[in-house]
Amino acid sequence: MQKASLTILGCGSAMPTRKNFPSSQLLEIRDKQFLIDCGEGTQIRMCQMGVKANRLGHIFISHLHGDHCFGLMGLISTFGMLNRTAELHIHAQADLEKILKPQLQYFCNDLSFNVIFHTINTRKHELIYEDRSVQVFSIPLKHRVPCCGFLFEEKQRDRHIIREMIDFYGIPTFRIPRIKQGEDFITDEGEVIPNGILTTPSETPKRFAYCSDTAYYEKIIPIIEGVDCLYHEATFMEDEKIRSKQTEHSTARQAGEIALKAGVKKLIIGHYSARYTNQTDLLNEAKAVFENTVLGEDLTTYEI
Amino acid sequence: MQKASLTILGCGSAMPTRKNFPSSQLLEIRDKQFLIDCGEGTQIRMCQMGVKANRLGHIFISHLHGDHCFGLMGLISTFGMLNRTAELHIHAQADLEKILKPQLQYFCNDLSFNVIFHTINTRKHELIYEDRSVQVFSIPLKHRVPCCGFLFEEKQRDRHIIREMIDFYGIPTFRIPRIKQGEDFITDEGEVIPNGILTTPSETPKRFAYCSDTAYYEKIIPIIEGVDCLYHEATFMEDEKIRSKQTEHSTARQAGEIALKAGVKKLIIGHYSARYTNQTDLLNEAKAVFENTVLGEDLTTYEI
Repeated sequence: MQKASLTILGCGSAMPTRKNFPSSQLLEIRDKQFLIDCGEGTQIRMCQMGVKANRLGHIFISHLHGDHCFGLMGLISTFGMLNRTAELHIHAQADLEKILKPQLQYFCNDLSFNVIFHTINTRKHELIYEDRSVQVFSIPLKHRVPCCGFLFEEKQRDRHIIREMIDFYGIPTFRIPRIKQGEDFITDEGEVIPNGILTTPSETPKRFAYCSDTAYYEKIIPIIEGVDCLYHEATFMEDEKIRSKQTEHSTARQAGEIALKAGVKKLIIGHYSARYTNQTDLLNEAKAVFENTVLGEDLTTYEI
Repeated sequence: MQKASLTILGCGSAMPTRKNFPSSQLLEIRDKQFLIDCGEGTQIRMCQMGVKANRLGHIFISHLHGDHCFGLMGLISTFGMLNRTAELHIHAQADLEKILKPQLQYFCNDLSFNVIFHTINTRKHELIYEDRSVQVFSIPLKHRVPCCGFLFEEKQRDRHIIREMIDFYGIPTFRIPRIKQGEDFITDEGEVIPNGILTTPSETPKRFAYCSDTAYYEKIIPIIEGVDCLYHEATFMEDEKIRSKQTEHSTARQAGEIALKAGVKKLIIGHYSARYTNQTDLLNEAKAVFENTVLGEDLTTYEI
């Protein structure tokens, strides 16, 4: 089976540090790439990791704070210089198009590909993207500006056919696709061979949720329930709880609480305030509530 | 004496590489900081080098290609978060204000400081900035879009007074500033003590020229003649001479030729095309013409 993986390009917050670039991550599912947020330096991080973005067609922007979108112009320009031809789709609030279009006209007026904007309603939990193998849903978040997270759901794959059974029952090739989808096989003699004898189930589809930036917000719990991996912001620790409320960010402990209540399998924290030079403290605070927490780090790939 | 120094934050060209960020450098003269170009990631490089930009008041943008200005929004946002209060002056072509203003309004509408735009006429060689210790002149360059380099000239400092002479002639304190500026001293008895006896000359003022991006362009030679340090772009090697002409860039050899003809003291090359993984080849090509050439490198400080 192909694995789903998440590569963190940047998991700092508003101010970059020596370790962390602003928010950006690359999700790879079934040979497709999805970019989630695009802070300054995203294309530089990709270059540092040797990421070829030739399977990247869709970018999802959570909200219009600079640390989540200032890398778009550089990335698009570079795609132009690489003579990209495939359409590039950007999913974001409507304002982004208004801000980027004049810049695209000025700096990239001879682009070799189209940039297509799709408007997200950040207040609604709804399907915003779908292809044959993946669905993406918006997750309304609670932040100072309109903001939403993203739930990526792999679709159920076809069942695995048991090769010996094809031979045993002499199943013709043209029948196989439907059997993989769960159909029984009827022999020439009219005998019904139940699908369960011919196939084994496919892997459980992967689910990944990205929740940044947000205050502690329990309304997301039913949406992200049981995901294989949750990336949740942990800008502050409990020592800065007042500031986290004011700025509508979460503490590491709160990220752990959300993970626990939603029964997720793994939590990755990130979007750390630049004030924390020792991020292990943030990890420990989240782990005290939710054991299977991982410290998000730039230039690192996580299996989902 | 305080030294003048140049810190290269990025000396890559349009496409970043593992080694090089896009164009940006910080010039420090007499305790002031000047930023020259501001490609994507400039603030990240500053952070990586521990540069505090609290003496930075003026930014000079050579031209409006993304790799020379996409870092401005991130830098300005961060200055805002740091509660900067000092005015920030940006010297660039008029179009930059039109492009940045809507972004500033959207992303930084509550900035704690003013951003002031100054228009450069890139076709003219003229004084574009002056304070008590430094003058900056534009240097018209030859590129696909309006573009100019910058000549930074330190002003002549006061002469050094010889302390023993103050005591010997009993020179009152209030006379000292004018003697430092070259005046003779007249004793109470009417004796004229020539300035040359009382003082020694100050250091020769430093001159630095930044020339990027540009085709080989001999018209800059009289302007940059004899500078202590010339940063000249060397996007290509002679093997890509046709491409360098098409794109109006220089080869390393041409950078060396300009340095030689202008009789500069030191040449730093940069703005390397991403195709050259071994930049020593570029250095050697320039050195074959102009021996005192230095390879520009990101995150490196050069004395001027």
